[in-house]
Amino acid sequence: MPNNKGLKIVVIGGGSSYTPELVEGFIRFHAELPIRELWLVDIEAGLHKLNTVGNLAKRMVERSGLSIDVYLTTDRRKAIEGADFISTQMRVGMLEARGRDETIPLKYGVIGQETTGPGGMMKALRTIPVLLDICRDIEELAPEAWLLNFTNPAGMVTEAILKYTNVRSIGLCNAPIGFIKQISKQYEVEPDRIYAEFVGLNHLHWITRVDVNGEDKLPEQLSDKDGFTASNVPQQAWDPRFLRSLGGVPSYYLKYFYMTDAMLADQQQSLLRDGNRAVVVKQVEDELFKLYEDPDLNEKPKQLEKRGGAFYSEAAVNLMKSLYNGTNDIQTLNVANRGIIDFLPDNACIEVNCVVTKNGPLPLPLTKVPTQVKGLIHAVKTYEQLAIEAAVTGNRDLALQAMTHHPLVPSVHVASQLLDEMLEANRAYLPLFFQD
Amino acid sequence: MPNNKGLKIVVIGGGSSYTPELVEGFIRFHAELPIRELWLVDIEAGLHKLNTVGNLAKRMVERSGLSIDVYLTTDRRKAIEGADFISTQMRVGMLEARGRDETIPLKYGVIGQETTGPGGMMKALRTIPVLLDICRDIEELAPEAWLLNFTNPAGMVTEAILKYTNVRSIGLCNAPIGFIKQISKQYEVEPDRIYAEFVGLNHLHWITRVDVNGEDKLPEQLSDKDGFTASNVPQQAWDPRFLRSLGGVPSYYLKYFYMTDAMLADQQQSLLRDGNRAVVVKQVEDELFKLYEDPDLNEKPKQLEKRGGAFYSEAAVNLMKSLYNGTNDIQTLNVANRGIIDFLPDNACIEVNCVVTKNGPLPLPLTKVPTQVKGLIHAVKTYEQLAIEAAVTGNRDLALQAMTHHPLVPSVHVASQLLDEMLEANRAYLPLFFQD
Amino acid sequence: MPNNKGLKIVVIGGGSSYTPELVEGFIRFHAELPIRELWLVDIEAGLHKLNTVGNLAKRMVERSGLSIDVYLTTDRRKAIEGADFISTQMRVGMLEARGRDETIPLKYGVIGQETTGPGGMMKALRTIPVLLDICRDIEELAPEAWLLNFTNPAGMVTEAILKYTNVRSIGLCNAPIGFIKQISKQYEVEPDRIYAEFVGLNHLHWITRVDVNGEDKLPEQLSDKDGFTASNVPQQAWDPRFLRSLGGVPSYYLKYFYMTDAMLADQQQSLLRDGNRAVVVKQVEDELFKLYEDPDLNEKPKQLEKRGGAFYSEAAVNLMKSLYNGTNDIQTLNVANRGIIDFLPDNACIEVNCVVTKNGPLPLPLTKVPTQVKGLIHAVKTYEQLAIEAAVTGNRDLALQAMTHHPLVPSVHVASQLLDEMLEANRAYLPLFFQD
Amino acid sequence: MPNNKGLKIVVIGGGSSYTPELVEGFIRFHAELPIRELWLVDIEAGLHKLNTVGNLAKRMVERSGLSIDVYLTTDRRKAIEGADFISTQMRVGMLEARGRDETIPLKYGVIGQETTGPGGMMKALRTIPVLLDICRDIEELAPEAWLLNFTNPAGMVTEAILKYTNVRSIGLCNAPIGFIKQISKQYEVEPDRIYAEFVGLNHLHWITRVDVNGEDKLPEQLSDKDGFTASNVPQQAWDPRFLRSLGGVPSYYLKYFYMTDAMLADQQQSLLRDGNRAVVVKQVEDELFKLYEDPDLNEKPKQLEKRGGAFYSEAAVNLMKSLYNGTNDIQTLNVANRGIIDFLPDNACIEVNCVVTKNGPLPLPLTKVPTQVKGLIHAVKTYEQLAIEAAVTGNRDLALQAMTHHPLVPSVHVASQLLDEMLEANRAYLPLFFQD
Repeated sequence: MPNNKGLKIVVIGGGSSYTPELVEGFIRFHAELPIRELWLVDIEAGLHKLNTVGNLAKRMVERSGLSIDVYLTTDRRKAIEGADFISTQMRVGMLEARGRDETIPLKYGVIGQETTGPGGMMKALRTIPVLLDICRDIEELAPEAWLLNFTNPAGMVTEAILKYTNVRSIGLCNAPIGFIKQISKQYEVEPDRIYAEFVGLNHLHWITRVDVNGEDKLPEQLSDKDGFTASNVPQQAWDPRFLRSLGGVPSYYLKYFYMTDAMLADQQQSLLRDGNRAVVVKQVEDELFKLYEDPDLNEKPKQLEKRGGAFYSEAAVNLMKSLYNGTNDIQTLNVANRGIIDFLPDNACIEVNCVVTKNGPLPLPLTKVPTQVKGLIHAVKTYEQLAIEAAVTGNRDLALQAMTHHPLVPSVHVASQLLDEMLEANRAYLPLFFQD
Repeated sequence: MPNNKGLKIVVIGGGSSYTPELVEGFIRFHAELPIRELWLVDIEAGLHKLNTVGNLAKRMVERSGLSIDVYLTTDRRKAIEGADFISTQMRVGMLEARGRDETIPLKYGVIGQETTGPGGMMKALRTIPVLLDICRDIEELAPEAWLLNFTNPAGMVTEAILKYTNVRSIGLCNAPIGFIKQISKQYEVEPDRIYAEFVGLNHLHWITRVDVNGEDKLPEQLSDKDGFTASNVPQQAWDPRFLRSLGGVPSYYLKYFYMTDAMLADQQQSLLRDGNRAVVVKQVEDELFKLYEDPDLNEKPKQLEKRGGAFYSEAAVNLMKSLYNGTNDIQTLNVANRGIIDFLPDNACIEVNCVVTKNGPLPLPLTKVPTQVKGLIHAVKTYEQLAIEAAVTGNRDLALQAMTHHPLVPSVHVASQLLDEMLEANRAYLPLFFQD
Repeated sequence: MPNNKGLKIVVIGGGSSYTPELVEGFIRFHAELPIRELWLVDIEAGLHKLNTVGNLAKRMVERSGLSIDVYLTTDRRKAIEGADFISTQMRVGMLEARGRDETIPLKYGVIGQETTGPGGMMKALRTIPVLLDICRDIEELAPEAWLLNFTNPAGMVTEAILKYTNVRSIGLCNAPIGFIKQISKQYEVEPDRIYAEFVGLNHLHWITRVDVNGEDKLPEQLSDKDGFTASNVPQQAWDPRFLRSLGGVPSYYLKYFYMTDAMLADQQQSLLRDGNRAVVVKQVEDELFKLYEDPDLNEKPKQLEKRGGAFYSEAAVNLMKSLYNGTNDIQTLNVANRGIIDFLPDNACIEVNCVVTKNGPLPLPLTKVPTQVKGLIHAVKTYEQLAIEAAVTGNRDLALQAMTHHPLVPSVHVASQLLDEMLEANRAYLPLFFQD
Repeated sequence: MPNNKGLKIVVIGGGSSYTPELVEGFIRFHAELPIRELWLVDIEAGLHKLNTVGNLAKRMVERSGLSIDVYLTTDRRKAIEGADFISTQMRVGMLEARGRDETIPLKYGVIGQETTGPGGMMKALRTIPVLLDICRDIEELAPEAWLLNFTNPAGMVTEAILKYTNVRSIGLCNAPIGFIKQISKQYEVEPDRIYAEFVGLNHLHWITRVDVNGEDKLPEQLSDKDGFTASNVPQQAWDPRFLRSLGGVPSYYLKYFYMTDAMLADQQQSLLRDGNRAVVVKQVEDELFKLYEDPDLNEKPKQLEKRGGAFYSEAAVNLMKSLYNGTNDIQTLNVANRGIIDFLPDNACIEVNCVVTKNGPLPLPLTKVPTQVKGLIHAVKTYEQLAIEAAVTGNRDLALQAMTHHPLVPSVHVASQLLDEMLEANRAYLPLFFQD
């Protein structure tokens, strides 16, 4: 952290409706994270949103009385130069692309989801080359910076960065912090009294230890059939005898894998009843931006909380604080495996508890990995590895291997048709797949 | 091999219609495998078949002029005592159980197959305790004997024996030898000019090297979309662009995983059109036994070849010969992993090329393991480990975990219903699951 | 920690001259470690010392005004029953045995040292069976207790406990905390601003990362040829070009391995000049006990600090505090390897940074293991494994293998003679080796 | 093997006195190894010897009546072009350098040996860069050729080639074949009835299985205290209780490690009594060359057998035959570890049983690795890795690390002095260490 006048922080995709969350966090924890410059960066097409949210950010800072300079720019390189922390939150192809990711698979009887399955794969193919491009700039202009990657599929994007660049990157998700908060509330203890062990990948983890004040609460958690469920995933109760013998509390994303039939039926019905979910999200966003435009608004509006990204800001600010101060506390992050999950390659990205030192996260060894979960972790990682390689090469055969080997895709035949249709639908965002 | 007067060989399930195949092999290779006693063992319920096939065996030996004594018995312990080689080929629950294994899953839209999926799992639950029981006798009465296990699911049964007994056991399948034969014919070379590397599990392998006279023929094999197909699996052509980028020639059983939809449709149609396949097999067997009863028949009848078990005899006799003589030749066998597939446990049973020394098979390291195949291997092995543990404990929760985690089973919901119905249907053969 | 009235702590070898150190720590940190009962245990032969030091302990507690009950006993089982923490500090054979450990090898031109080489091996052979015996009591009477083992050779003793008992044991040494203190002083920073990565075994580690406020100070440390040297090891300067390319700051015990000739010469000269060091230590102890007898003394005497065991108390109390409170801080401990040093077995005991959770230490992965250090670590661990097995079996052949394979022993010939003489000299303490 | 007119074989260091051995083998096995061209290559300084031995080779071929063309050349590139097999047998610095390798260490009380210890290290430093240079030519001119490396230290040279080039190289030693021959003679069985498992490195192996006709003869071998001893190593009997509990028959080179004192005394005495052994060898060679000059000599002279290189020719010709014909037989070779010894890196060169396929050797997994041997293997491999890196970089610090970490070198102090003197003595052959 060379900048002794304070930190330079860059938010790529700064025009996102989530940005006020982040800004609020930066203000609240300024004593521990002395930011001097905050750069919000976006692309030309997002300039209007950038200005709207950026001006709200400026008003929030002004109200706080802190001396943070807020910059709004489309000049990514200028923003990155000399940065201490860079965070990314972007959506290549915007909500329209998400809409296609979620609906095209449904036509083939396949789960339509924005971070896993064929939908998540398309998001990875669109996003990875853009992120790698940003990383080239970071390597040149801020080689010591930490890149906090929130961009989904966060595990795959982080793995691509780890494999193809020298950027110091960490993938982040709000699910782990959400679980801790819930347990903290349920048992009425401070979060630092809880030790929860996460095993698996981003959006594909099992929590195999839940110690509250040193006491094992896992059996209790596994007898709770409603389980831990985020609001953005349809409620489907777990089969009690399955849950109790699973060996770990499943991530809510695992319902796509373990209850594929019910989840698919629900998605198909939702689409018929409510239309494309991406359209709904679009409306929520439009309303938020309308609020943000109010020149008298100088704090994060309540409505943002309903948006679904709870704890994103907390996760990001916590990590920056710990890296900056070398607090050696434990956080659940997406980092290189390096032997932690002994059946995956060293350079696979996994979601795992880490001690956050000043020189980066050190993953903690896993004390229990139930037999049950190994095959599915490996099956999904196989898909991820193939899809990442397809994303950086534009190789259609690899893309077909990736999609066929995804556990949610039922056959080569379906994979082949889905792939052709989805690649075509994303043509504008997949230059590597449509070279002449 | 203590018996210097010649070898004692025991065939458990000796009343099988395949036995004349084996006997023919023993006669043909007597010079290299000097058998003195051949014991055919079966259960009371199979006594009639044992006598029928056993008397044919006696006539075949008589015709050969060799001094082999053939014994027919239901006294398993007497047969095992002091044996040098024991082979098993049994079907707990007989063809009726197979019929149920193949048809019940179809009602739930799941593949019905006798060695994999829910059907194969039921076969494992029925068979493993019986085999372990036999192994207790071998440990006591013939601790130095080699047990050649043909009983399906051969990989799972062998893994159970490796984990729970001290018997020297090797699992065997006719598929690898069949592949070598086909390549030998296609390129007009002797089998010993071919090096084919098998990666994976029993009935779940990919052939990742096909060297003919030292030349790499893999690309050629991967461009053959009809692929290598045994007669007992419906013909479904491979997608050419999938096949060429898969990295290995897939076992024909992989069609159940890669073309689940088409294979399922075919099974459902077959059932409607031709009825239960087990019934058809039953008719074929009945006809064979009618032939065997002919007191003038003293050789293996031609009709047996159509039965589908080509090369079983050759595989068994080859292995016995090599163990007996310590020939150090290479055979593809089912043995303990011990680090060969680096992401599976040491005690997992895998299908792999081995050098057959006098003291048993030494597996050869794999030179290529395509990323593509890792996830599926691990997913199926996860199911296998759970199912084996369920089989030896009679634990229904474990059985549910096993069935749910099988890649051919679409959800906990389906697994739960299928499990209950199939356990009930097999009640007579699953004492551990129906204890009071 | 079931005891809500406060903790029960047991010190086995409570009559040690170090005990006042421990008691002082317990008093100082009582707020974080609410001790209710302190049991000092010793054997009959040590009863006088136990009473002397125990009465001092009682006076110290009284002076503090805390309500801690101090018990002095030779009834080990009564002491252990229901304990929360047990620490051991014992010397089987007392200082006389140490004298022999340090002097007999010198006759053969071999390093005489109390924790490594032939001397350390004898200490291990004497001590391990006694510790395992204590562990049987703990398994029965306090199965949830944590055993903090300071008894040298601490790594080997802890490995024996991990391998042969179910006791939750952690090995401890004061060297790591001493290094941190020194760096803290040198750079004038708080200890929690330092991240030092320890690689290796107890008394055989290299420090491969020294981050002070996140800055890499390793090159600076490796250019300091006088290095870090404890007062109880003769000063021998490191060769500067060797040190700078070694990849880690060597433990001072490594001088026995890297400067064997000079260290041996020094030991031989010392013996001639000053006599047996154990005798000197004995005198220091006698003087300490004379001080302890003073009924007006009610605090730790200054003279104890010169004794050489600096930081022992701090290490012990820190660890108990962190286990009790689940502070998740980082401490350097001796625990089971479980994959951290990838070339050693999972059940080897290593010295490594750990996060101390309420349920025990989780070792942190190593970020750098220089090629240079691997062979020596493995060579010493090989000796340790063989010696531990010899200690629990009393097998002389294993003992010979252990001694011959110790890197400080030059040949089978020397090992054989040394072993015979040293076993005989320790006959009274090695019942397993002298059975009829 | 593209050359359908017959094979082109190149012997680098063709002027060696061993060459007639090789030529005799080529003639004897011509039916299985149809050589068409034999190129003997040497450097200018060796031209006279090349012509002498080369003309003998021509007379031997002529006598055989085979149509093999023998070429004598100093044009290495011309020789290599299009070669099928290349073997190397060279001595950079000739016998004079060997003399220094063997005698300088003795002055410091360190073993002087041409393939291990400081002497072997100097040989490695001189040799590796020359071999890598040859490999550049092979990569360009004969990329499909097999390089059989006999040049000592064969394990280290082969590891350097595996790490720094793409040449298909195999290291070879005559010790394993010698052991098999001895067992074959002792038990009066054919070599193919013996399975001996070699564990370790070149000149540092233990034989942990000796099966003769499937029977375990290891205990018998371990009770033979005179052991297996080659004529070029002084006879020192093994300690019987050490040998019987070692877990494997030690290579005779292990006497340098296990009986360092006696071996050193013997070397020092020999030097005083007989003078430099390299001088003796030189005389033997001179006499051989005098014989070779005889224009009437057209077969290998009996005297060559006394020279000490028994079975070199057999080892080389066996390997070429098996590679050419793809015989899948088992030979003990020096190849990349790739997981076989689980504590060494994948790219370490080990000595191990291999199945020799047409596409190269496949190492066989080890069935027993005694704890005893692990530390020493790792310690020596650590030295080897460091020395190889020193050889290719000319880095003196690395060279000091390598020498200090060699188990035969007693301290940094000795290593430092020895290194300086030996580097200086080899200045002419170490351009990388003496750059300006």
